[in-house]
Amino acid sequence: MGTRDRIVTATNELFRAKGYQGTSLADVSAAADAPTGSLYHFFPDGKASLAGAVIRESAVAYQALFELIADGSRGLVDAVGNFFDGAADNLAETGFIEICPIGGVAREMANADESIRLATADAFAAWVGALAERFSVAGVAEPDATELASTVIATLEGAFVLARSHRDATPVRAAGRQMRRLVQVHLAGGEL
Amino acid sequence: MGTRDRIVTATNELFRAKGYQGTSLADVSAAADAPTGSLYHFFPDGKASLAGAVIRESAVAYQALFELIADGSRGLVDAVGNFFDGAADNLAETGFIEICPIGGVAREMANADESIRLATADAFAAWVGALAERFSVAGVAEPDATELASTVIATLEGAFVLARSHRDATPVRAAGRQMRRLVQVHLAGGEL
Repeated sequence: MGTRDRIVTATNELFRAKGYQGTSLADVSAAADAPTGSLYHFFPDGKASLAGAVIRESAVAYQALFELIADGSRGLVDAVGNFFDGAADNLAETGFIEICPIGGVAREMANADESIRLATADAFAAWVGALAERFSVAGVAEPDATELASTVIATLEGAFVLARSHRDATPVRAAGRQMRRLVQVHLAGGEL
Repeated sequence: MGTRDRIVTATNELFRAKGYQGTSLADVSAAADAPTGSLYHFFPDGKASLAGAVIRESAVAYQALFELIADGSRGLVDAVGNFFDGAADNLAETGFIEICPIGGVAREMANADESIRLATADAFAAWVGALAERFSVAGVAEPDATELASTVIATLEGAFVLARSHRDATPVRAAGRQMRRLVQVHLAGGEL
């Protein structure tokens, strides 16, 4: 891995473990085995621009992961359920540290740094857009396709908070089952 | 308001605006107009025990607010929708600062302070228990009543993150409409 990628990866891990405010450039430098000078070479504005890179690159990576899971699932209901179950496994395996650097940094910095807020907004908008497109192709009309996509992402982010509080992935698995149910209702036409 | 209540109220507001790590006891002292000595008089362990009080008292207050809204609604579907809409209004009115000190502090501190993590877990468990009880009384069987309650709380917490990122309450209103739909499905017996 090149120096720039090592820096972004280390920052991502530190944000997940210690939060944005809890992470110093000295921490990043040590974890990435890169001198502070090279941090400023790649990220002239320091921590905020590093955060922008972490958010943008994580957004792309998680979207690719979802597309991979979706393409390997029997349908959208399973895709959504499988994504929640995979996240639940990952949470437990990593000792319930913050699983999503985007949600974590968004919650922490939305009112403190406008460039970071906008980067997280772009990330959420890209996820919601990609998921809404799949719901739309599967026959869910607007505005439900976008509202459902936004709600699935919100539910995942919120379930992470409950799971980390309880140190137990049950809320993520439960939310996955309930989201399967909700997606199923929409795919069936939504009539009760 | 007595000194102790002024301290807890000021801490709650500071946590919402600046996060746990971003709030110092000096900030609390200034905002509550109370000398640091009185902070330690009421909260001998300092910031962590102050956080415990904020979490416990907010948990009770939000639960009371939900019960009030639920008792004033035509049924559980409306109660859930009205709670999301009220939260959306509140987010917009307060300039999209953290609306829930419990979710915010949980996300920030779950892996850093065990006493704070346990206080947030108790708060979430109390909310989920109270909501599950209402679902149960309305005819939703277990494990769905508890899973649905946990998912509604998770969805609300996650929708706050998206709304704060976008500085737009739309994700909370959308999530409220989708949660109405999900609750409706369960009350109708959940058959598709």
